[in-house]
Amino acid sequence: MGKLTFEVTMSLDGFIAGPNPTLEKPLGEGGERLHEWIYGLASFRERHGLDGGETNADSELLEESMARTGATLMGRRMFSGGAGPWEDDANVDGWWGDDPPFRMPVFVLTHHARETVSKQGGTSFTFVTDGIEPALEQARAAAEEKDVAVAGGASVAQQYLKAGLLDELQIHVAPLLLGGGVRLFDDLGTKQVELEGTGAIQSPAVTHLRYRVVK
Amino acid sequence: MGKLTFEVTMSLDGFIAGPNPTLEKPLGEGGERLHEWIYGLASFRERHGLDGGETNADSELLEESMARTGATLMGRRMFSGGAGPWEDDANVDGWWGDDPPFRMPVFVLTHHARETVSKQGGTSFTFVTDGIEPALEQARAAAEEKDVAVAGGASVAQQYLKAGLLDELQIHVAPLLLGGGVRLFDDLGTKQVELEGTGAIQSPAVTHLRYRVVK
Repeated sequence: MGKLTFEVTMSLDGFIAGPNPTLEKPLGEGGERLHEWIYGLASFRERHGLDGGETNADSELLEESMARTGATLMGRRMFSGGAGPWEDDANVDGWWGDDPPFRMPVFVLTHHARETVSKQGGTSFTFVTDGIEPALEQARAAAEEKDVAVAGGASVAQQYLKAGLLDELQIHVAPLLLGGGVRLFDDLGTKQVELEGTGAIQSPAVTHLRYRVVK
Repeated sequence: MGKLTFEVTMSLDGFIAGPNPTLEKPLGEGGERLHEWIYGLASFRERHGLDGGETNADSELLEESMARTGATLMGRRMFSGGAGPWEDDANVDGWWGDDPPFRMPVFVLTHHARETVSKQGGTSFTFVTDGIEPALEQARAAAEEKDVAVAGGASVAQQYLKAGLLDELQIHVAPLLLGGGVRLFDDLGTKQVELEGTGAIQSPAVTHLRYRVVK
């Protein structure tokens, strides 16, 4: 059985989106800056149907992470349009277009039952209404021996962490202080979680920190 | 002229002390865990009048940082007893004892004028009442060509950062999620600060991240 991982880009001050996210600007004010390290990478561009791009330590790490992942879990808002506090029903068909970058089964945590949607390139969206554990079971079955990745948002990742189900954190620390916005770790309560550092790589654009969750 | 640096240990979720800090327990609930990486190091123990301890990549880094620092700046609460929200006048003589670990001139930002206190081992505490810039000027003069280090607390570091005076951040990321407590970056407002990563080292006990503040 593969691991349950969570991979995310945050600013050094702990934000995964800037202040005031909206449906039009789901990463909030200044939030695109977080992901600058990834936009120019060949592996990212290829997944988004774009030519060219750079191949370096960052893109290798990204490719490795995509290769070991067999299924993805996400919250309803991430499916329908970002991390903001807007209506749950915005973009009922998702905002990922006809050829989403996942290219694997994606399981969406939601309260609204609906049929699985199949997209181009191997991506499917399956909607799970009975909670994080059944969603994980379905994702594990789909991933076979590979890892299952929690894609976000922060609250979904926090739920898996609190439930003791997360095995690994991979945090890409963007070299900036956003000064405000959506916090990655904001709702953990007071339970302390021990981690074990399993790798730190700094490139000019970003610092990759990998941790195992000690259980 | 040396640089103005800020060096601090934070949890991966951004806390520099646990929840509910008190005068008796200034690091809050579970906060001592943050500094576990440092307690056993020879260079730390020597500064605190203790024998033995380990020599490794962490202690080398600590020694290097102490060697290039010629003066320290701190807030009134850090002088008198930690980061908590207690009375400003607690421990008027400081809680650092007769032989404080700084061994250099320390400048304390306060609203209460008083005479400079000289301690053993080369540490002196000078009280500055006219703000962060005059305090920095005095510290720079005392440091000569060496760096000036902001020792904390978080609010003092944030003031220097906001004023555009901080040159370097060295964050020791402890491998744990505290889940609550005193945030390092909590009051920056919305102004975005660009950083440049200048080093990342992971030891079994801690991850050291160094950044230059881009001005």
